Amino acid sequence: MRLLITAGPTREPIDAVRFISNRSSGQLGLSLVTAALAQKHSVTAILGSVAFDLPAGAVRIDVETTAQMHDAVLREFSAHDMLIMAAAPADFRPKQIFEGKMPRSGSLTLELEATDDIVAAASAIRRSDQRTIAFSLEAEGNLDRARAKLLRKRVDMIVYNPIQTMNSAEIQAALLYADGRSETLPRLSKADFAGLLLDRAAALLANP
Amino acid sequence: MRLLITAGPTREPIDAVRFISNRSSGQLGLSLVTAALAQKHSVTAILGSVAFDLPAGAVRIDVETTAQMHDAVLREFSAHDMLIMAAAPADFRPKQIFEGKMPRSGSLTLELEATDDIVAAASAIRRSDQRTIAFSLEAEGNLDRARAKLLRKRVDMIVYNPIQTMNSAEIQAALLYADGRSETLPRLSKADFAGLLLDRAAALLANP
Repeated sequence: MRLLITAGPTREPIDAVRFISNRSSGQLGLSLVTAALAQKHSVTAILGSVAFDLPAGAVRIDVETTAQMHDAVLREFSAHDMLIMAAAPADFRPKQIFEGKMPRSGSLTLELEATDDIVAAASAIRRSDQRTIAFSLEAEGNLDRARAKLLRKRVDMIVYNPIQTMNSAEIQAALLYADGRSETLPRLSKADFAGLLLDRAAALLANP
Repeated sequence: MRLLITAGPTREPIDAVRFISNRSSGQLGLSLVTAALAQKHSVTAILGSVAFDLPAGAVRIDVETTAQMHDAVLREFSAHDMLIMAAAPADFRPKQIFEGKMPRSGSLTLELEATDDIVAAASAIRRSDQRTIAFSLEAEGNLDRARAKLLRKRVDMIVYNPIQTMNSAEIQAALLYADGRSETLPRLSKADFAGLLLDRAAALLANP
């Protein structure tokens, strides 16, 4: 497979030094890249702010904001069979970026707006020979919200990912498919989960 | 000297996954810890979200928010001769933290309030045998703002630090003293700057 894998958080600047981000470490995306290279797939990795190096063999594209990740994904997607959106792009960004460094003051109101929905945009332009997989980080047991996202974003599969997974070495996920199937997975190391997800991804491509 | 050195950015939670932070890497603080250990000083390092390990020999305290750094500094300060506030604590935090994960929505207004001024609080309780050094990250040429901070925070010295220093391997700083003296430094590696700053810190302690 030619895999386009995103990983890590994006950052949305408030001013020249401050930003909004999130706690994603990108480790799950790193596990996916590592497993994909081991299985001899070709990998392009689009990375937010992560602190790790990738194993040799992947094409690496670094981005900062959700808008930059959106543009990189839409530019790269056509040359790939599968988008696995393991990144945690910021959902909100300041409406205005303050030039320079904001002075400290008593209080401040920050107006935020929604960023682009990257996996929805990629799904909207995918060819019949392409697939998209999204992740849905939700409070434990909140499968309904994950299923709603699956439909709204029009992806082929969504990985329901309990919030407890963040910064954990393990993941207890469920896979929800566009055709209504679902698969509840046992607690797995991120490496074992990555191998399993790539198997399911290959099956998605084989069975339109 | 018994040095209390802070380094790195703090994070202020918006909800269970999102936070506000800043671009500080903590590298200057790491250079100070490294130089201080090489000079056989005793070091307690209070660190925000940094991606590095400290060299052996320092006591390390990890914190997340500015309030946690504030509490750690005020608790530790009395057992030290000198506070060097190289950290970049968040100046603003959300007035309310959303429980769980905020749903994505069209737009959002975030009310922020000022955090505690850590170095001002430490300076206010320092004994006559203790000193405090602050940093002032400002747009190039903005020495007046650094001098105003020196007076407002009542520190013994402030390091004027042009914004261009951030994520650079070098620093071109100026040292401003409470007694009106100032010293403009050449462009230095962060390691050379750290050694020089420790010399000036020792002189501050020797000459009340």
